[in-house]
Amino acid sequence: MTNPSTFVLVHGAFQTGATWEHVAAELRSHGHSVHTPTLAGHGPGAPLNLTHADAVASLVEYLREHDLSDIVLVGHSIAGSFIAKAAEHVPESITRLVFLSALAVADGHALADEFPPEQTAIFGMLDPTQGVLLPFDLIRERACNDMARADAETIFGAMTPVPVAYFTDKLDLRVFYELIGSGRIKTSYINPVNDISFPPGEYGWEKRAQRLGPLCRILQTPGAHYAMTTHPAELAETLIHAGRD
Amino acid sequence: MTNPSTFVLVHGAFQTGATWEHVAAELRSHGHSVHTPTLAGHGPGAPLNLTHADAVASLVEYLREHDLSDIVLVGHSIAGSFIAKAAEHVPESITRLVFLSALAVADGHALADEFPPEQTAIFGMLDPTQGVLLPFDLIRERACNDMARADAETIFGAMTPVPVAYFTDKLDLRVFYELIGSGRIKTSYINPVNDISFPPGEYGWEKRAQRLGPLCRILQTPGAHYAMTTHPAELAETLIHAGRD
Amino acid sequence: MTNPSTFVLVHGAFQTGATWEHVAAELRSHGHSVHTPTLAGHGPGAPLNLTHADAVASLVEYLREHDLSDIVLVGHSIAGSFIAKAAEHVPESITRLVFLSALAVADGHALADEFPPEQTAIFGMLDPTQGVLLPFDLIRERACNDMARADAETIFGAMTPVPVAYFTDKLDLRVFYELIGSGRIKTSYINPVNDISFPPGEYGWEKRAQRLGPLCRILQTPGAHYAMTTHPAELAETLIHAGRD
Repeated sequence: MTNPSTFVLVHGAFQTGATWEHVAAELRSHGHSVHTPTLAGHGPGAPLNLTHADAVASLVEYLREHDLSDIVLVGHSIAGSFIAKAAEHVPESITRLVFLSALAVADGHALADEFPPEQTAIFGMLDPTQGVLLPFDLIRERACNDMARADAETIFGAMTPVPVAYFTDKLDLRVFYELIGSGRIKTSYINPVNDISFPPGEYGWEKRAQRLGPLCRILQTPGAHYAMTTHPAELAETLIHAGRD
Repeated sequence: MTNPSTFVLVHGAFQTGATWEHVAAELRSHGHSVHTPTLAGHGPGAPLNLTHADAVASLVEYLREHDLSDIVLVGHSIAGSFIAKAAEHVPESITRLVFLSALAVADGHALADEFPPEQTAIFGMLDPTQGVLLPFDLIRERACNDMARADAETIFGAMTPVPVAYFTDKLDLRVFYELIGSGRIKTSYINPVNDISFPPGEYGWEKRAQRLGPLCRILQTPGAHYAMTTHPAELAETLIHAGRD
Repeated sequence: MTNPSTFVLVHGAFQTGATWEHVAAELRSHGHSVHTPTLAGHGPGAPLNLTHADAVASLVEYLREHDLSDIVLVGHSIAGSFIAKAAEHVPESITRLVFLSALAVADGHALADEFPPEQTAIFGMLDPTQGVLLPFDLIRERACNDMARADAETIFGAMTPVPVAYFTDKLDLRVFYELIGSGRIKTSYINPVNDISFPPGEYGWEKRAQRLGPLCRILQTPGAHYAMTTHPAELAETLIHAGRD
């Protein structure tokens, strides 16, 4: 059997650590230790005048406060950028970064630079003082494509806007790419087979996974962008396969 | 549970509405209303001197005669072009277009323009006065790749040629693309995971699905090009997921 | 039921015919005849001063010695190049070539020309007098991505280096491409859905499969690069589907 691991699961945009509830229970039932922090700028009433670095700092602080080591640090969706930056601060605590349907941002890019133009056009229509929250239609059709409308409405109903700067701050990721290039931190990429949050092709997951280098371990899993909601048992198993040595 | 829908299932080239028999039974067992018209120019003894518009007209006429509304209109293979044109005539009757292994033809293109060159080369060898019927080897290896030869022979044995003009008429699809661009009609794309009727890559399903815009709901399903024959229960379930609100 | 076939299963680099043990048992339980030769230059103590043609000759000699005909000749990984060249020598004995996660080398290329640059960079670091054996990390992360580390270590522990010339000899494949282009020998391509031994994209399996022409039968199967180890029953079934008429 696999040795017990310490999983830290980082939610995607507009959500909180609560999104991992069922996956965390599955992982714990296999003997693993699981943390599901909610990052700064997320959740009801969160401030919207934060920078990308503030979200990263809240994650790093969580890892230090809980004195965690040998961490399998999992980032969903835009949290790919938060775990990459966090790894720069506490590389010695992290064994492996797992990107789940996640953005692997190019050095010097902002998150928004990684989105396809037809989606950033939607960003542009939003009021920056209100933060960013994607419209329901896009969430429903692209991220909840395998769900009933009522379930998509439940997910969307719990969402809250996040700071605009999370998407627009340019990110210096040189240390991150050195850490994974040198093999000091290992990486895995998990692609749910029905995930079309980004269109297949030029912006597809394959190109993102390739940025993580020739030793990135890639795995498919059932479900779509919110596999943690629709397929928690299968996702927990894939996370174990992605995170083990 | 999902509200009952009205499905209109449009067969692909060389076939008839009978190809949907098992899928239709599955959908009806879930409470849905199902229609499986055979379009003009298809089936034994059909005239071969028809135009693409004639096939579309026969579909529109069927929808009007049966006084259908709130339709989930499904097109298989080349029928992607027939449902797109039909939507231009009766947009108010259609809730969603579902493209199943289907061509989403570019405005101004003919169906043949969407085929890879190695397959249109095969078209060129056919006698136009006999209509178009692809050779058995191509059907067997690319569309029936997951079947026993005897099953491929059964499918091919029931096929009849269709008018050449179906493949060569240039299509004005400006109204169609306005309808889906404005969100007046929603779209879904279903890709059977083993479908290699078109080669993966430049002519792969991803590029076709992308033409349907940033809100097209994309779903994978088991089987290959004739999933309605090999995986009717699974396909019916995916059609329900593709067609629901 | 499918007629009994004669399967000849050719292992990939660094391995021997023993790798097929469980798949062979499955195929035999379905009534098929199965051969699993070990090619020259493979296995403990094998000479490392051989050429690509020597490995091909050892395969052709095996087929002749055993007087095999109507062969379904399966090649795994780099053995795609060995079965292609063998087909040039005994085309009359072969019904179909099945490429399993295999390289379809372009005419005039060496095997190494088909590898992505980040992997050939790894080749360059090896001592040619010792033969080629990829490092454990690459095998573990890219080829054993769906396995526990202990299972990856078992596979790697049984591996032995192969002659460098297998990767660097330029291959004249004109006769092979004529044989499959003319339809004298049919081809199938099997892709395990989790196989990332080569990165998806420019070096992905789709482009390799496309080289095999418009009538190549493509099938997906569960597992990753060593599906014969992790999913022998499913792979045997897919091999039957790939090899049948």
